[in-house]
This record gives sequence, structure tokens and C-alpha cells, in this order.
Amino acid sequence: MIPMWMAELSRLSGLSVPTIKFYLREGLLPAGTATGATRSTYDESHVRRLRLIRALTDVAGLRLDTVKQVLDGIDSAESWHDAVGSAHTRLAGTGEDSAPPTEASLARVDALLEIQGWQLAPGHPQAEILARALDALDEVGHPMSEDMLWFYAHAIRPIAMEEVLWVHSDEHGEEIEADVESAVVRTILTEPVILALRRIGQENVSRQLNEPKPDVPPDMRMWPERDR
Amino acid sequence: MIPMWMAELSRLSGLSVPTIKFYLREGLLPAGTATGATRSTYDESHVRRLRLIRALTDVAGLRLDTVKQVLDGIDSAESWHDAVGSAHTRLAGTGEDSAPPTEASLARVDALLEIQGWQLAPGHPQAEILARALDALDEVGHPMSEDMLWFYAHAIRPIAMEEVLWVHSDEHGEEIEADVESAVVRTILTEPVILALRRIGQENVSRQLNEPKPDVPPDMRMWPERDR
Repeated sequence: MIPMWMAELSRLSGLSVPTIKFYLREGLLPAGTATGATRSTYDESHVRRLRLIRALTDVAGLRLDTVKQVLDGIDSAESWHDAVGSAHTRLAGTGEDSAPPTEASLARVDALLEIQGWQLAPGHPQAEILARALDALDEVGHPMSEDMLWFYAHAIRPIAMEEVLWVHSDEHGEEIEADVESAVVRTILTEPVILALRRIGQENVSRQLNEPKPDVPPDMRMWPERDR
Repeated sequence: MIPMWMAELSRLSGLSVPTIKFYLREGLLPAGTATGATRSTYDESHVRRLRLIRALTDVAGLRLDTVKQVLDGIDSAESWHDAVGSAHTRLAGTGEDSAPPTEASLARVDALLEIQGWQLAPGHPQAEILARALDALDEVGHPMSEDMLWFYAHAIRPIAMEEVLWVHSDEHGEEIEADVESAVVRTILTEPVILALRRIGQENVSRQLNEPKPDVPPDMRMWPERDR
């Protein structure tokens, strides 16, 4: 580990010196090694942590207080499973001032978990988030049918399985911290990938429905024209 | 439409009077019908709009300025396809102060779109979001392999198709505004459903890998124990 000054840390991380100092004060970035009354040196682990903070804020769109909680979870976790659970709990905190989910939606989530063979501790934040999302769709007059909910669970299941198996099949380093960081970061940073692919897919299906190719005879069209 | 006073609007929407007045000032909620110098009445459309704002902020976690842009997009769109495209563009604006994606990642996205038979206009925000997410994973040292990226696209494709077909198969109301609102709201409000199901799935697969059932003989286990 080659020590570096703040200026070099700023250059390598792409973040300004005032921003880095702010992260130090807020406890997002561990202190450097003091080399005098007012100067400190930093190393590669600081560059890595700053890149992680930038990715979590810019790409995953997390607020700084949430980023801090996720980082604390990474730093204190002892296993992949713990760290992901901890990060999920902390990320779930974003809606903490919202109303609790209705009993009806919680019962729907329980039924879904049972049919999928999934277990969650009672009061688990993800079950509550799911129930609250179902309530919100009800409230705005677009309830999600049981068919749709089951379809989502069924379609997402293989994604979750592949993701966990990928992480487990990677060579495990000496440091559990690196493994844990990897799992949490991948989970969060692939959320925009999943949502972007879904929207790109929607736009393309929608376009196909709206604009059948003019040179395709009607009986050869993939999507029959609909009256509207 | 039965007119109501502000107090009734507050009761039905579950939002405080100061909050509603703030939304009126910010242009998130259309003005009511003036019935005097200082009093106005509101109707069911105001209740509906307030519930929508609450869902977009609390459940989808959008910032108020993004909510305003999404609502403006809904109000001015002329078709489902336009509205979803517009909402996607506006939602994509959250990372506008981030660095542009690298050429390498944009080329990967182009290759993915081609293999999936998908088209997007050049510079389309979702292509940029996707490319930026790939860059972020690179930067934090967890690059997404081509296999993984293609797996995601393949796994998400049927979700996008079902969603668009569901909306199209619904009876279309007289008001295009209601259709458009429905499509945009469903797209945004089902994001937490998708992400929560993914995390619940991950936790369950992870738990299965960590804790094989003690009463299952090793050769019957679904997940062989791994050295770690």
C-alpha cells in the first residue's frame, strides 16, 4: 500500500477535496494515517471506498444517510448472508415514516412466500416493503392481481438464484469484508441494470404494438392490430 | 363530482393541510375552483392526484422534483407509449450531474440491444443509465460479465412483455389521461415489488446455501456443502 496525500486521493477518486473532507467528517470514509498535526496520508482502500460511495449515490441513487448505514453494515458483517440481510434492512428504512402495511396485504405476502417455499422472519422489512407497495397500488386504483404478483415472483426467482450462486462460486478472498462488500454492492448496483432493461423491454414491446412494420402483410404480423 | 373543502381533501388523502397547500404552490396539484376571495373547492380528481403523489414519494421513493416531472409528463402525453417514454426520460434525469458513460459500455449496450432485437433512439436515457451502471460496477471492481448481462436481459424480457400486454388488454377508458396515468404508475410502483421479491429470493437462496437441513443425508442435499 503506497501512501498518498489528499490531492492524489482526490485525483484518483474523481471527487473534490471539500467533498472528501465532508465524507471524512461524516464518518463515511475512515480517517487516514496522521503524519503531523494537520496532515494525513491515505491508501488504496480509501480510493476504493470513495468509488463505492460515488457509485451508491450516483448510480444507485441512495441518500448519504442510507449510504452510511449500508457501509456500516458492510464493515460490521461477518458473512455474506448477514451483510446482505443487514443492507436490506437498512435500505428498507427509506420509507420509515410511511404508514404500516395493511393486514390484508401482509396476508397476501405470506401466502406468496408459502407458495414459493420462501421463509422470512415475522416483521421482515422486505415483506413490509412488498405489502406497502401492494397497498400503494390499491390506493391509486391500480390493484395488482394475484396472478400478476405470482407471475412476478415466478419470473424473478431464477434471477435471485443465479445471483447468489454467482457470488458463492467466486473464489473467496482472505478478507470476508471484500466478499461482503462485493455481494452488497452487486445487489445494489445491479438494481439500475434490472430496471433499465425492464423499461427498454417495455418500450420495445410497446413500439411493436403501436407500429407494425408497414411492409409485413397483415397475416404475417407478430402483433395483430387492435382497435382503440 | 361532489365539491369538497380543503379539510375534507386532507381527510380523504391522508395528507395535512400545510402539505396540500405546499403541493398547490409547487404546481404538483392543480388549483381548485375558487368560490370566493380566499376559498376554493376540490373534487375526486384532487384526491386521486394526492394519493398518486404520496405513492410516488413514499413507495417509489422519488424526489418531489422528479414527481413533478412525471406528473407533467402524464398530463401532456397523448398515448401510452409517449407517456411511458416521457416518464422514463424524466426519471432518468436523476443522475444528470454524473459523468457520461464510457464508449466501451455504450458499445456493450448496443451489442445487447442488437442480440435482443431491441431498438432505442441514439442517446436514449435508458441506454445511458444501463451503460453508466456497467461503468459503476467496473469502477468498484465488480465488472458485470457479458454472460451475466445477457442473462439479465433474457430473464427480464418476459416481464416487460407481460406488463405491456396487461395494460393493452385492459378495457380502454374514454380518457387517455387515465390510461397513461395507469401505465406510468404501474411501471413505477411495481419497481419496489420487483426489487423486494429479488431480495427475498436472494435471502432464501443464501439461507439454503448456509444452512443445509441437518436431517437430510449429504447425498440428498439440494446444495452440496462448499468449502469456504
